[in-house]
Amino acid sequence: MSKHVFDEAIALTPAGPDLFRGRTHPGYGNMVGPFGGVTAAQALQAVLLHPDLLGEPVSLTVNYAAALADGPFEVKAHAARTNRSTQHWQIEMLQDGAVTLTGTALTALRRDTWGTDDVRMPQVPPPGELARVTRHGGVEWVKRYDARPITGSFPEVWDGSENEALSRLWMRDEPARALDFASLTAMADFFFPRIWLRRARHTPAGTVSITVYFHVGAQQLRDTGSGYLMGQAAGQGYHNGFFDQTAQIWNEAGLLLATTSQIVYYKE
Amino acid sequence: MSKHVFDEAIALTPAGPDLFRGRTHPGYGNMVGPFGGVTAAQALQAVLLHPDLLGEPVSLTVNYAAALADGPFEVKAHAARTNRSTQHWQIEMLQDGAVTLTGTALTALRRDTWGTDDVRMPQVPPPGELARVTRHGGVEWVKRYDARPITGSFPEVWDGSENEALSRLWMRDEPARALDFASLTAMADFFFPRIWLRRARHTPAGTVSITVYFHVGAQQLRDTGSGYLMGQAAGQGYHNGFFDQTAQIWNEAGLLLATTSQIVYYKE
Repeated sequence: MSKHVFDEAIALTPAGPDLFRGRTHPGYGNMVGPFGGVTAAQALQAVLLHPDLLGEPVSLTVNYAAALADGPFEVKAHAARTNRSTQHWQIEMLQDGAVTLTGTALTALRRDTWGTDDVRMPQVPPPGELARVTRHGGVEWVKRYDARPITGSFPEVWDGSENEALSRLWMRDEPARALDFASLTAMADFFFPRIWLRRARHTPAGTVSITVYFHVGAQQLRDTGSGYLMGQAAGQGYHNGFFDQTAQIWNEAGLLLATTSQIVYYKE
Repeated sequence: MSKHVFDEAIALTPAGPDLFRGRTHPGYGNMVGPFGGVTAAQALQAVLLHPDLLGEPVSLTVNYAAALADGPFEVKAHAARTNRSTQHWQIEMLQDGAVTLTGTALTALRRDTWGTDDVRMPQVPPPGELARVTRHGGVEWVKRYDARPITGSFPEVWDGSENEALSRLWMRDEPARALDFASLTAMADFFFPRIWLRRARHTPAGTVSITVYFHVGAQQLRDTGSGYLMGQAAGQGYHNGFFDQTAQIWNEAGLLLATTSQIVYYKE
């Protein structure tokens, strides 16, 4: 059986203490450099592959310090503090010795506790009733997903009309792949910059920092398998070159898997 | 004129390249250790005081790796990457050589652009019409703020009843102090753990990671002066020992100053 293209993309090779090597994957190319969701997944993967790892990811923040060039990179991941049931990680990605990404992660041994969700999955049509996106705008990474917009899809016409920046869609890897922390991380960055939807106007924009909170463990990700995820994204504030957006991701059973926020540079 | 107690608390002394020294302030003591909002402000302050600083804060993430003991600490802040208009910072706080906090920050030169807010300040009574919190539960830091709950205040009765985890309140430093990035950072952590409100049940809980996005620059903070800020906080998902909450902060004029999210440990 051949390897899934996402597994090829996140493959890292140990290269010393706290050090891994990887390379950008042409299958996840964006307009410039790679899709940031896969870059975040590669950063997390350095933690997940680290021999010192305690527990499972609870929180991840990555900052895109520079555009990655197509080609090899290094990832450093270091457990700055290990407690009884939690561990704090510092992450750096480098190309030619220069830092291209900084990040932190929290991993933890999770326990049975009371739980609930205050953000509930909205009533939406099932993925089978919705059309799959077939236009990829020449962007390679979009072809690696089966995306089925429910509302708030990419503007059809760039006419400067103001719209609500709310999007809902079903998504999964294409071809289908069983969900794990790396692929969930990538899909947390699936939502295109809210400003494009908000203004129906082309303006250069790119994520500079993303934070993902994981609400489930590996077993619940395995239970989700290769089913679709329902993602919902909205904007908050847009001022002086930066805006932020938030998103929630549920599985088909309505289980909240992750919540995320990001701040995005925009040009004008 | 004597120094404001918040300025005493965030005072740092340069102690070498990328290194500052500070100490916890008894005026901001929490049940155990100091108020995390002031710890986050101290971490940011190391960036703000750094001679290499470019621009103003746009994003800050701090992870509380261990409880700070009352006493001195070191803060390391290092510009990992400086671009033309953005700069990426790595931050660490240490006590006795052990890491107690990790963090990252993005600073940037902001420019005039189109802007708007998708999250609008709700209609609420002005602070002058609301009663100030006078019960501090023996927690010192709460006395350093003038807080005027609008809805979703601290449970009166811990009876296990389930409630909406939405809080709105006016807040400002007490005594009044002109707003800046450090005090706004502290107030981003003002909102008590949503789980207490959600369940009306005492369970040990503490923030493990907080992210703040700043939507305004220093001039707009100065314009806000020592007026009240309106904060709104809500919960998202609560599962297996960790939950997350989000918040927005506006000034009295309805300008969105900051948005924030945090993930919080809870015991049961």
